[in-house]
Amino acid sequence: MKISAKPASGMRDFRAEAVMRREYAIERIVAAYRAHGFEPLETPAVERLDVLGGKYGDEGDQLMFRILKRGRKLTDANADDPSTLSDLGLRYDLTVPLARVYAGHRNDLPRFYRRYQIQPVWRADRPQRGRFREFYQCDVDFIGSTSHIAEVEVLSAMGAALGALGFDDVVLRINDRRILGAMLTQAQVLEADHGPVLTVLDKIDKIGHEATRDGLREIGVSDEAMAALCELIPRLAGRDEAASLEALATRLAENEPGSEGAASLLRIIRCLGELLPAGISAVFDPTLVRGLSYYTGTIFEASVADLAGSVAGGGRYDGLIGMFSGTDVPAVGGSLGLERLLVVMEERGMFPELSRAGDVMVAPLDSDAIEYALRYAADLRRQGLTVQVYPGTTKLSKQLKYAESLGIRWVAIAGSREAESGRAQLKDLVSGEQTAADPEQAAGVVRGAK
Amino acid sequence: MKISAKPASGMRDFRAEAVMRREYAIERIVAAYRAHGFEPLETPAVERLDVLGGKYGDEGDQLMFRILKRGRKLTDANADDPSTLSDLGLRYDLTVPLARVYAGHRNDLPRFYRRYQIQPVWRADRPQRGRFREFYQCDVDFIGSTSHIAEVEVLSAMGAALGALGFDDVVLRINDRRILGAMLTQAQVLEADHGPVLTVLDKIDKIGHEATRDGLREIGVSDEAMAALCELIPRLAGRDEAASLEALATRLAENEPGSEGAASLLRIIRCLGELLPAGISAVFDPTLVRGLSYYTGTIFEASVADLAGSVAGGGRYDGLIGMFSGTDVPAVGGSLGLERLLVVMEERGMFPELSRAGDVMVAPLDSDAIEYALRYAADLRRQGLTVQVYPGTTKLSKQLKYAESLGIRWVAIAGSREAESGRAQLKDLVSGEQTAADPEQAAGVVRGAK
Repeated sequence: MKISAKPASGMRDFRAEAVMRREYAIERIVAAYRAHGFEPLETPAVERLDVLGGKYGDEGDQLMFRILKRGRKLTDANADDPSTLSDLGLRYDLTVPLARVYAGHRNDLPRFYRRYQIQPVWRADRPQRGRFREFYQCDVDFIGSTSHIAEVEVLSAMGAALGALGFDDVVLRINDRRILGAMLTQAQVLEADHGPVLTVLDKIDKIGHEATRDGLREIGVSDEAMAALCELIPRLAGRDEAASLEALATRLAENEPGSEGAASLLRIIRCLGELLPAGISAVFDPTLVRGLSYYTGTIFEASVADLAGSVAGGGRYDGLIGMFSGTDVPAVGGSLGLERLLVVMEERGMFPELSRAGDVMVAPLDSDAIEYALRYAADLRRQGLTVQVYPGTTKLSKQLKYAESLGIRWVAIAGSREAESGRAQLKDLVSGEQTAADPEQAAGVVRGAK
Repeated sequence: MKISAKPASGMRDFRAEAVMRREYAIERIVAAYRAHGFEPLETPAVERLDVLGGKYGDEGDQLMFRILKRGRKLTDANADDPSTLSDLGLRYDLTVPLARVYAGHRNDLPRFYRRYQIQPVWRADRPQRGRFREFYQCDVDFIGSTSHIAEVEVLSAMGAALGALGFDDVVLRINDRRILGAMLTQAQVLEADHGPVLTVLDKIDKIGHEATRDGLREIGVSDEAMAALCELIPRLAGRDEAASLEALATRLAENEPGSEGAASLLRIIRCLGELLPAGISAVFDPTLVRGLSYYTGTIFEASVADLAGSVAGGGRYDGLIGMFSGTDVPAVGGSLGLERLLVVMEERGMFPELSRAGDVMVAPLDSDAIEYALRYAADLRRQGLTVQVYPGTTKLSKQLKYAESLGIRWVAIAGSREAESGRAQLKDLVSGEQTAADPEQAAGVVRGAK
């Protein structure tokens, strides 16, 4: 039986150009995170199921890759009870491992722990276009502070990363869970309906304001409540005006969490205005909900014009990091959607030319010249060039054609005659010109033409 | 029940300093591989079991992490027959994925495919000191050529990597499987005994020449054969002289594969002599065997003085890469033992100071100054510095103490008065000195002191 050469379903191989593009992006993200004082963390791909289990809801339990027990441990297992078959699973996100590490090292970590983590996670999602079972997350989190400075530092780091990648049309929408709660209370939406109402409100971008109002009515939102919500959220009324956070703050003044949320958001947005790179703007969006239930304050999402959905998101989640230590630990963090960003960068041609094959190929002309050709290549490398030696003494035309097929511009031809003179014939495959050059001269020519 | 905060058995968390040291090493290895024209490849952590199965012998089958099937696929499974429970496994090495990718893309890969791959692999080895269940391999392979230039390019790249890491006491021992075969034939060791004899010979470093001879006698090597072997391998006779490859080449002249192997090795060692960085020397070792059965020609291993065992190894394996395509494809490759190299580098203090917390902490003195402090930090970052803002307006002495605890030398103190002047009080925690400085001036001072 012939074995397929394809990677496993939903998985990807990355060949040279793809690896280099991913590295290009990750390097810039890391530099932006580090410039903001965040430090790296790496955790293992494999975690115990007592760490992973029950942290991601039913969906997570279904999509998690579990590892089969081995040897004697498997002997007592029973296929009808999957819990007996496995006690390890693959990393599903980067937040639970962070919480685990924080619980284990709280005393030797800085009091304000700023960490970033860029690693793959695995989810057995149904494979489909643009959705993979192995993908990178680029998390940045600020643990240990309730100050809005934590939000600003996280968002500034993420904004700097997007700017460094070359994005200049990013809209960063921000809201606060406490504002959402206060708006619903103010509009006298029944407490029991808050969850469903938020779920519908979250879809306004996709379904439009009329369908959103229909959805709210179906839940049982009264006409009075609807009118109040439309007052608070202009978009829900179909009005094309930006929601005024100042106005909202005044209206929610009676609701303590709501006015705290509004005041915090005002501070954050004011600070960000002067910090974010050109072309990245922070705006208040009272319809931003974000699905994950663990957010407790600020929430945010970033998007670019030509891609539905978001390229980054996050928020404050003061209850999560303490899950293993049993204490409440304030935290705010966000994540860049690397795979989505790469798609947009590819489509827009945002990558520079990333040289794959290198600067020079050395072409040995005869077997007596091989040793010299290898030495000549080593000398060029010492000058900082990327150099490969053709593995043979095939006739020159064939060697030149091979260099051309790799996209290598310069060929250093080294035969026995050249070996005697300490030079090579340096051929420019673009112009066709050829000159005798020792390694230093050749490196100068190649660098000069870059 | 309290959940342990430790990583899963045999797995490791890497916090800031460890990540930075690993990155430091990997960057240097990548640079050396790339300078030699090798291009990157990344493959998924998860592979199908039809790709992984039967490739690593019984040991591999036992140590491989398998992934439990999910949902309906698991319903038909039977715990007594593990093969029904799993059809995916974790990457066990980087060679089998390379062979898979090569089979799938042979026509769009360069004819001479030089690839490197630096990724973790997973093996359920018994956890013990220095042995982990998740560890990195740093492979570099040259596919498609039978020329000794391929060996030289691979070994030159690996040598350059070791040199770039700072190693200057590396002995690279080289042999050729064909020489081993010819020596045994020449000494009239029975064909059937070749395998066991090589296994014993391989241990000479550990057990010494006398125990090696005893071992050979136990296998049934005759006195005549032993005498012949001692002639060919001075170390086996307890003689403290280097084996002469030239002398051996002459003696093996009648044996075609043996003399081809010797001629090839002579060429390789001669070339390497001029290419390897200072302190990395290549020597012929007729007792080097290397366990893996798939090597067909050159084999090599590198070691450093203060670590038993090797820090790198590899060889030519002309039969392996074609395993999925059904054709024979010549290949030579090697691997650096990253985890072992890191241990030695750590012990020897070979890492430079890798700054973790950054250059400057900005200390906001009062809440009116927070916005200014954040802006001042952004200005410093634009000058290329790593900067964090203290998340609060705690009293200054506490903020200074915090900066000190992180190892940050400079604190930029920003209060309302400073905000008016566009400066901050830049405090040097080493000297205690303090001066008013705008962001540009501050960046100059900090950079100047680096």
